[in-house]
Amino acid sequence: MSSSAFYIRPATVNDVDGILQLIIDLATYENARDSVKATPELLRQNLFESPLAHALLAFSNTGTTTEKDKPIGLALYFFNFSTWTGRPGLFLEDLYVSPEYRSHGVGKALFGELAKVAKEKNCARLDWAVLKWNQPSIDFYEKRVGAKAMSEWEGMRLEEQGIDNLLGWAPSEQDLRGDRP
Amino acid sequence: MSSSAFYIRPATVNDVDGILQLIIDLATYENARDSVKATPELLRQNLFESPLAHALLAFSNTGTTTEKDKPIGLALYFFNFSTWTGRPGLFLEDLYVSPEYRSHGVGKALFGELAKVAKEKNCARLDWAVLKWNQPSIDFYEKRVGAKAMSEWEGMRLEEQGIDNLLGWAPSEQDLRGDRP
Repeated sequence: MSSSAFYIRPATVNDVDGILQLIIDLATYENARDSVKATPELLRQNLFESPLAHALLAFSNTGTTTEKDKPIGLALYFFNFSTWTGRPGLFLEDLYVSPEYRSHGVGKALFGELAKVAKEKNCARLDWAVLKWNQPSIDFYEKRVGAKAMSEWEGMRLEEQGIDNLLGWAPSEQDLRGDRP
Repeated sequence: MSSSAFYIRPATVNDVDGILQLIIDLATYENARDSVKATPELLRQNLFESPLAHALLAFSNTGTTTEKDKPIGLALYFFNFSTWTGRPGLFLEDLYVSPEYRSHGVGKALFGELAKVAKEKNCARLDWAVLKWNQPSIDFYEKRVGAKAMSEWEGMRLEEQGIDNLLGWAPSEQDLRGDRP
């Protein structure tokens, strides 16, 4: 597969089923299939109707019509903000290329497109996360992409029950002034 | 200082100088004072004119007028998106309480307010990052806030030069279809 054997375009609302399949394929590779609670309806709402994130898709130019309609690669990203730089950043939430299409430059092309988006939006950083056991990806990110591991930082997370547990810590209404954004 | 000795409100554009001072104070504590490139103008633009992030501020109800006008705590956050949940999340970029006002519930109150924001926006997660050597904060987050360390994940980062280096990986224009979001 040469570089002209595939192309990249922004996802549209008609792509939600294909996006979800790639999200599931990536989660399966990450041993986390059961963690995927996303649905086509949630993707429609949060990527297109009130977009919180955006997606680039790669498609093959070869194969049957059915094969050509199915995306072979996904880069799903959103914009964030860094207090140190004072500027927007691009966070790459999911990057995936179907195994049978790897080693042909699809991942590199997706990173190239992400870099163009980051420049257009004046982003100071491009960030993402990788599972520590995923050495092939870490090698690609560090040796080819040129990324730096943020090993001095640890991520912390609360899920829904944890968020609920904190509600009692909010001051009573008379201690609050003004409206939240 | 009792719980009614302080109050929390959303930041307004008039607070940019106070926000920047707390960002600098936090970065100084993190041994990263020189990493702060933010300016009042960048904060005005990216928090208020075209908001990429939002801020809650805590103020003391006691002290001189000057002391009462200076924020004593900051929670700066933005909304992100998780492909696994398909739902928005709240990312806490910076949390800081001035040392002389600690151990009086200001941090807990800020977390309580963040939990309320997360519920209002149907967020599935509340995420943040902590420096691994910052054991007092990790203890507070794990033992009091109830957060889970995401120790199986490693963050990866490109800064501006790294982003520029990837531009050549973007496919030529004829390989692209459609407009980027």
